[in-house]
Amino acid sequence: MLSQNNQVYPVIWSQDAVWLIDQTRLPNEYSLVEIHRSDDMAQAIKTMIVRGAPAIGVAAAYGMYLGAREIKTSDKDKFLAQLEEVAALLRSTRPTAVNLFWAIARMLRTAYESIGSVEDIKQILLKTALEINAEDLQTCQAIGKHGLAALPNISKLRLLTHCNAGALATAGYGTALGVVRSAWSAGRLTRLYADETRPRLQGAKLTAWECVQEGIPVTVITDGMAAHCMQQKMIDAVVVGADRIAANGDTANKIGTYSLAIVAKAHNIPFFVAAPVSTIDFQIATGEEIPIEERDPVEIYQVGDTILTPEGAEFYNPAFDVTPAELITAIITEHGAFAPNQLHAQLHQKQMV
Amino acid sequence: MLSQNNQVYPVIWSQDAVWLIDQTRLPNEYSLVEIHRSDDMAQAIKTMIVRGAPAIGVAAAYGMYLGAREIKTSDKDKFLAQLEEVAALLRSTRPTAVNLFWAIARMLRTAYESIGSVEDIKQILLKTALEINAEDLQTCQAIGKHGLAALPNISKLRLLTHCNAGALATAGYGTALGVVRSAWSAGRLTRLYADETRPRLQGAKLTAWECVQEGIPVTVITDGMAAHCMQQKMIDAVVVGADRIAANGDTANKIGTYSLAIVAKAHNIPFFVAAPVSTIDFQIATGEEIPIEERDPVEIYQVGDTILTPEGAEFYNPAFDVTPAELITAIITEHGAFAPNQLHAQLHQKQMV
Repeated sequence: MLSQNNQVYPVIWSQDAVWLIDQTRLPNEYSLVEIHRSDDMAQAIKTMIVRGAPAIGVAAAYGMYLGAREIKTSDKDKFLAQLEEVAALLRSTRPTAVNLFWAIARMLRTAYESIGSVEDIKQILLKTALEINAEDLQTCQAIGKHGLAALPNISKLRLLTHCNAGALATAGYGTALGVVRSAWSAGRLTRLYADETRPRLQGAKLTAWECVQEGIPVTVITDGMAAHCMQQKMIDAVVVGADRIAANGDTANKIGTYSLAIVAKAHNIPFFVAAPVSTIDFQIATGEEIPIEERDPVEIYQVGDTILTPEGAEFYNPAFDVTPAELITAIITEHGAFAPNQLHAQLHQKQMV
Repeated sequence: MLSQNNQVYPVIWSQDAVWLIDQTRLPNEYSLVEIHRSDDMAQAIKTMIVRGAPAIGVAAAYGMYLGAREIKTSDKDKFLAQLEEVAALLRSTRPTAVNLFWAIARMLRTAYESIGSVEDIKQILLKTALEINAEDLQTCQAIGKHGLAALPNISKLRLLTHCNAGALATAGYGTALGVVRSAWSAGRLTRLYADETRPRLQGAKLTAWECVQEGIPVTVITDGMAAHCMQQKMIDAVVVGADRIAANGDTANKIGTYSLAIVAKAHNIPFFVAAPVSTIDFQIATGEEIPIEERDPVEIYQVGDTILTPEGAEFYNPAFDVTPAELITAIITEHGAFAPNQLHAQLHQKQMV
C-alpha cells in the first residue's frame, strides 16, 4: 500500500523498483504499477499514470536512477553520455512542468560531480532520488503551514481549488491541497469546492478522492460554476498549484486556472498559488516564454466509452494556461508566502536563488 | 424528417401529434419522439428531450393544445378550470426559462378570450400553437439579421458560443446560432468555437452537431479554455442565448455564461446575448429575482456509463447563472440590438412593451 495512516504517496521506492499509484484508474480502482526501467517511467509520465508537477519531478529522479542502472559500461565518460540519453528521453515526456527538468538536472549534476566508480555513482543517484522524494514531502508540509497563515483570517473557510495539486501530485500531502489539509487540521476549513477540471477531470476524480479518504467535506462543481458560486458568496479563497512559475510570478497551471483567477479578481476573492521553489523558473522573465503542452483531442471528445461529439467537429486541447502575476494574491512556497512581484527579492534574501 | 434543406426543426406538428427530435440522444443518434398527451410533453420538457428557452415555449404551447383536447367536458367554465391544471403541470417542469410561462400564458389568454364552443376553443388553441411556432422561426431569422449588423466590423470573424442556442433550442435557425448562421451565410465567419458546456455538454453534442450539418467550421473546447483562447487572440466576439432577461438587462443563461462574460470583459471582447423579446421578463427588475433551477447531481458525476467521482463526494448543480447587464455589450432581439440599459426604452418606443 502506498497509503498509510490516511497518507497518500503516489511514488515510492521499494523492493528495488518504483511503485506508482495508477492515477488514470482512480477513483474507481486503486491499483499500483511497478516500474523497473527508465523507458517505462517515461511512458508512465507521458500517459499520466503519474502526474502533477512535483510528483513528475520525483518520478523523473527515480527514472534517472533506473536508467543509470541499465547502463552496462564501467567507463565513466561513456556512462555519462548514456545517462544524458536517459535524461533526454525523460525530458521529452511533458514540456510544461519545470520540476521535471529541475529534477533531471539535479540528478545529472550529481552524476557529473561524483567521484568514484560508475557503480558508486549509481548508488549516489539512488540516494539523491530518495532525497528529492523526502524533501518534496517536507516542502509540502511547509507550504501547508505558510499557506494557512496566508489565508483570510476567517474561522470557517470555504476554499475552492482546480485540478489536483494534492498528495497525488507531489511526494505526498500536496501543495494547494497541502494548504487545504493544513486548514482542515487546524479546524478552520468547513468545505472544499473542487472544480471537476475538464478535460481529464483530475478535480472530480483525484481531488475528491483525496478529500473523501480524509473526511474533508468536498463539493464537486463543473468548471463553469465557479463564478456563480463566487457571486453567491460561497467561496472565501481560491488555492491552486503550479506547473511552472516565471521570475515575474506569471504562473502556468492546469487549463482553466487563468479563467478562475479572472473571476476571483472580479469578486475580490484572494487567489493563491501554492508551489515549491523548484517550480519557479528564474531562467524566464515572464509567462509568455512558458511552452504550453497540447494534448490529444480524445481527452475532450471521449469520456469512458462515450463519444461526446459528432464526426466532423474539430478540437483544441491546451493542457495548461498562464495566469498573469497581477491576478495572484500570493505565491505560497516552503519558505513563505510572497506577493508575486516580491518573489525574486524575497527568495534571493533567503539565499534560495 | 424534422430536418429539411439542412434546416433543423426540433418541434413540429404533424399527423395530429407533436414530433420532437430527442436531444438527449444527439449527436450519436438522430431519433424522433411522438407526443400525443400533455403529461408526456411535460415529461419531455423536464428530461430535456426538448430544451432551449424558445423551443420549450413552442413545445409548451403544443402541450397546452394536447391537454385541451384531452378534456372531455363541453362546459366552458369546467374546460377552462381543467386547462388551468394542464398549464400548472407544464409550468412545473422547468423554473428558469420565461418563454415557457410566456407561451402558456398566451395559450390560456387565447382560451379565455375565445368566443364559441369548447370545440371551437380547441381549434383556436391549435392555431395559436402553430402561430407561436411559426413566429419563433421568423423571430430567429430577424435576430440573425440584427446580430450580423451588431457584430464587430471584421471580415473574418471567429465567434465563441456557450451551450446550444441553435435551431435545436428554438423553432429553428436559432438565436445565438442564428447570428452565427447569418454571419456564415454572409461569408464573414471563419470559425465557431463551442464551449462543450458541462455538465450536459450541449455545446459538444448539439452546437457541434448543428455546425457539422451545415459545414460551419467548429472547434469544441472545454469551458475552462475560453479565457486562454481569448488571451491567445483567437476570439473576436462571444454570442450566447438567454433563458430569462430581467427588465434591467441582467440575463439568466446556461451555467458558465457568467464566467464567460467576466473573462470576455477582461479581454475587451464584445459579449452579445441573442434572444426573442418573449425571453424578456419585464415583471422583474433585476436578475436577483430570477429563480435558478438546481438539477440532479448525476449530471455532474456520470457521463455515459462512467462514474467520474468517488463515493462520498458531494455536488452542487445549478443549471443557470445570472450575468449582470454591465457585462453585456448588446442584447440582440428580433427588433434590433440594444444596450441592456436601453432595452426597455427602445422596445417601449417600438410598442413592444
